[in-house]
Amino acid sequence: MYRKERAMDEAGMRTVAEVFRDRDDFLITSHVNPEGDSIGSQLAVFYMLKKLGKNAVMANHDPVPDNLKFLPGTGLITRGLPGDLCPGTVIVLDCAVLERTGKICRRPLEGQFIVNIDHHVSNEFFGDVNWVEPGASSVGEMVFRLAGELGVELEKDVAEAIYTAIVTDTGMFNYDNTSRETHRVAGELIARGVDPKAMHGKIFEAKSLSEIRLLGKVLTTLRLEAGGALAHMSITRQMYREEGVDYVSTDEFINFPRSIKGVEVAVFFKEMDDTRERVNVSFRSSGKVDVNVLASRFGGGGHAQAAGCVFNCGLEEARARVLSEVKRAFKE
Amino acid sequence: MYRKERAMDEAGMRTVAEVFRDRDDFLITSHVNPEGDSIGSQLAVFYMLKKLGKNAVMANHDPVPDNLKFLPGTGLITRGLPGDLCPGTVIVLDCAVLERTGKICRRPLEGQFIVNIDHHVSNEFFGDVNWVEPGASSVGEMVFRLAGELGVELEKDVAEAIYTAIVTDTGMFNYDNTSRETHRVAGELIARGVDPKAMHGKIFEAKSLSEIRLLGKVLTTLRLEAGGALAHMSITRQMYREEGVDYVSTDEFINFPRSIKGVEVAVFFKEMDDTRERVNVSFRSSGKVDVNVLASRFGGGGHAQAAGCVFNCGLEEARARVLSEVKRAFKE
Repeated sequence: MYRKERAMDEAGMRTVAEVFRDRDDFLITSHVNPEGDSIGSQLAVFYMLKKLGKNAVMANHDPVPDNLKFLPGTGLITRGLPGDLCPGTVIVLDCAVLERTGKICRRPLEGQFIVNIDHHVSNEFFGDVNWVEPGASSVGEMVFRLAGELGVELEKDVAEAIYTAIVTDTGMFNYDNTSRETHRVAGELIARGVDPKAMHGKIFEAKSLSEIRLLGKVLTTLRLEAGGALAHMSITRQMYREEGVDYVSTDEFINFPRSIKGVEVAVFFKEMDDTRERVNVSFRSSGKVDVNVLASRFGGGGHAQAAGCVFNCGLEEARARVLSEVKRAFKE
Repeated sequence: MYRKERAMDEAGMRTVAEVFRDRDDFLITSHVNPEGDSIGSQLAVFYMLKKLGKNAVMANHDPVPDNLKFLPGTGLITRGLPGDLCPGTVIVLDCAVLERTGKICRRPLEGQFIVNIDHHVSNEFFGDVNWVEPGASSVGEMVFRLAGELGVELEKDVAEAIYTAIVTDTGMFNYDNTSRETHRVAGELIARGVDPKAMHGKIFEAKSLSEIRLLGKVLTTLRLEAGGALAHMSITRQMYREEGVDYVSTDEFINFPRSIKGVEVAVFFKEMDDTRERVNVSFRSSGKVDVNVLASRFGGGGHAQAAGCVFNCGLEEARARVLSEVKRAFKE
């Protein structure tokens, strides 16, 4: 009856704690297109190393997303290495493979000691030290425990960084990586002063008028086919022009067709370019159809439940080709 | 530095446990328009009483919402009392005043013993026994502890009912009623087999195509005024007709204008009727403007951050009157 508790790698955590205590100069990095977990855990690790009296810098391939800039310390994260020399110890967070750090670790490092802290099941153990817990909701959840191991007290600022990591990587405690331990940690962070409502407002709200109005336009294009199992919708360059904007994030729009009762596959067509014919296609599946297979037939890829591909043709043609392939997949 | 732990009324809980053990025949009821917390805690209390070998029935003024019918036992909840006689003990859940039960407790009860279990700060202590914890996220969180006091083991079905209560009343652990204790309880429920992802799909997704397409139409009406501090949008009967539906729930639509950066007050105008001029108006405030005061100027009311009123006039007139009043409130 009781759900199996998630496995924790206490030995891996203790080894990382030893490295933190023994070494002096650290670079903390994470993956391209950083998000809540990579930025939040990066800030938390930086805070701990500083509390231990160490030298530490933070650098990523891409900039901090706007909605996370409220977190204290994000201004210290540089794009690319802050100097010519790389510190002797590189802590890589939330990366299944070293290449996910982009240019930060692209060239072979020169004798740097690599500490790999991650929660992806596909992690390749590329570090000199590897602490990998696929059962953890987030790297944030792991570094919370690391703070305990190091005896570092977490003040409100750093509690907020770790909370951000957890709440974003679990989709507000709704994804199936959310465990009893995840909730325990979230409770401990609230006890350290985190205000869940204020955090939600900063991380998830703060939308722009253009984003909401574009969402409205896109949703009116929504259609169901295949007896309600297939939902699709589109965004055109014309919609952007009508709103007088060049770009807004539409990453979350596909959650709307996906949430319709009975929908097995949701597809979102995005007209990409004003000058040439190019269409980006996002797929989501509720689980019965492997959309990684679907997207790979068009030269794309991803995961079984979330994938994408790009067409160098017009919207109508891309839509016709994709929808007939999805309908064929339903019949298989 | 540490946030104050929420006060728990352990004496109140123990008194309720005594009533559960001492008495034999129970009616379990909750408020009009029941939602996740009322239905979830109702099912949990029913389960506990049955485990204690008691007679118990469940009845509400209004039916169980469609998205909660997946919870085992909801088919046993009747609309109105199931017979002529009311059981000797009435357990009232999630009601600040007895009148919130609608017709269930409308007529004076005839000597029934009332057990009042609630978490509203405005609770009027109308029961013969009153267990009220304003710091609790939900009645579900309270009855989880009651199960422990009664020594009743919670199986997966009832853990799901309590989880539903908590996740709905906290807006997925995002409202400021979410405490360390809330997360502790959620973690315990996951340990008893609750699958957060599956629960999220059942409770919050399962939308209809009409609902999503109507949302799209409404969002294209979204406008900002007062330098971006006022957002408003409208739904017309024409939109319903275009979608070929008579009614869909639009309760959550106002979250979209509310989530725009800089918006202090969001207003949603709903054309109500095909035959006569009638407009329902919903207000939301980020906190600086008291929308209860605003709505009360038009004969409505609510809370400082969420309120509503009804106009017996056309959409244009209602909009003009409300928007000028909101703009005046900004200047005050």
